[in-house]
Amino acid sequence: MKLVRFGAKGQEKPGVITDDGTVRDLSAVTADFAGASISCDAIEKLKSLDLTALPEVEKGVRQGAPLASIGNFLCVGLNYTNHARESNLPIPAEPILFNKAPSCLSGPCDPVVRAADADKLDWEVELAVVIGRPAYRIDRADALNHVAGYAICNDVSERSWQIEGTGQWVKGKSAPSFGPLGPWLVTADEVPDPQALELKLELNGKVMQSSSTADMIFPVDEIIAYTSRFMRLEPGDVITTGTPEGVGMGWNPQVWLQTGDEMRLTVSGLGEQRQTVTAG
Amino acid sequence: MKLVRFGAKGQEKPGVITDDGTVRDLSAVTADFAGASISCDAIEKLKSLDLTALPEVEKGVRQGAPLASIGNFLCVGLNYTNHARESNLPIPAEPILFNKAPSCLSGPCDPVVRAADADKLDWEVELAVVIGRPAYRIDRADALNHVAGYAICNDVSERSWQIEGTGQWVKGKSAPSFGPLGPWLVTADEVPDPQALELKLELNGKVMQSSSTADMIFPVDEIIAYTSRFMRLEPGDVITTGTPEGVGMGWNPQVWLQTGDEMRLTVSGLGEQRQTVTAG
Repeated sequence: MKLVRFGAKGQEKPGVITDDGTVRDLSAVTADFAGASISCDAIEKLKSLDLTALPEVEKGVRQGAPLASIGNFLCVGLNYTNHARESNLPIPAEPILFNKAPSCLSGPCDPVVRAADADKLDWEVELAVVIGRPAYRIDRADALNHVAGYAICNDVSERSWQIEGTGQWVKGKSAPSFGPLGPWLVTADEVPDPQALELKLELNGKVMQSSSTADMIFPVDEIIAYTSRFMRLEPGDVITTGTPEGVGMGWNPQVWLQTGDEMRLTVSGLGEQRQTVTAG
Repeated sequence: MKLVRFGAKGQEKPGVITDDGTVRDLSAVTADFAGASISCDAIEKLKSLDLTALPEVEKGVRQGAPLASIGNFLCVGLNYTNHARESNLPIPAEPILFNKAPSCLSGPCDPVVRAADADKLDWEVELAVVIGRPAYRIDRADALNHVAGYAICNDVSERSWQIEGTGQWVKGKSAPSFGPLGPWLVTADEVPDPQALELKLELNGKVMQSSSTADMIFPVDEIIAYTSRFMRLEPGDVITTGTPEGVGMGWNPQVWLQTGDEMRLTVSGLGEQRQTVTAG
């Protein structure tokens, strides 16, 4: 299933896209998608519905992030070899975990807001994993059974705040609009191999990132098992799994997002995001 | 007001402690304390109630964390000069921000669970601030108006996971039970000066940490204003503001928590936490 949230910002309702491409309204079935309502069990119940009997949503309606909120919004840093190289950082021996503020969550085609003092604003196309079952100290072999689904995430980053100041990376990853997610949450059964997905990001029509999740240093199952050694993951938590080479910081000369820039992100089977950079 | 949550783990109800020390049941008034229901506006409404008319809760009932969940659970690192020195790290030029997983939230007297591979388990008594109004790029002079209240937090830390592995600090701060909060959320009006509170932590009856929030490098208002430059803080978010000297890592020889150890934490006016370390 392709789960969506549709409607004006802050007033989204849950929905599903049926095989004919129509968005159907799920709000009579579930209040929203977040936490327990996006668990593997909740998704199983949705699968038993006759989706074509649900009310159709008018075409062209805005799509929000497919989750109303995120508990733990985790990221993996430097998870593609060539991206670690372009960042002038060593290939990590273990996954590097850090957080985005949950309040940065944003719709897949909402503007990315560039504050006046964000002068090294950058993009990162990523495969995001939505947790569907509690996971604490689970085995790698069992890890994918804890996945509700997958979505595109643009791990928008202000490099000066992330790297140049004191302290940890969360500062540069968390401003409002820095977490576009979606357009869909594609349930795990429709992504048989999360390590065989093409990722692409275009800036103003030029391909800046083009890679495959096959090139991850730590694949999705290993990331989940590793993370679960240190914390309990909960349904509705998100781990975005790192970006391949081709971020603005890695180009020579470096490229930073400017007001009016347009990004287009795709991951095989997970749809498309389009964001315009606006001044804020 | 002193807001509490009482009852068995996972089944807590919201309550308030009235002047006579009695816990009163607020569950007919508010479903629980989290997010918008712990906003400054929601607290104002609670203040207008006749609290003595609420049902009394039997004495000795377990107290949970005063929040049912946390959106963004942020921490400030190295915010007391002598703690930075004992950590052999430089005095930071800006607040160091990092995250705890929201799922580590724990009751004030719940056990702290030590996994078999947690061999450098440590304590950190801290003043935690609960946000009560959205805060994005606010001024320092206005920052304390965005505080719902204060609570004690034990920022329990496994140093080997925090520091010795690859990556960022969240790994060592996030295991289940690593975030005891409470016993009370003391509303901001009852804490006129958050920089004049004594903090103390005893281990098996011996004072290990004893300091004052007056010694913070970055005071609460500056921490909130600084953090709000990088992310939007939301009602129910928590910032725990750093620990003074005297953590186990800082003693010579170093002291690590062992199964059976008992901690007692106090912060002036915010009550007392007591935790026993159990094997897990």
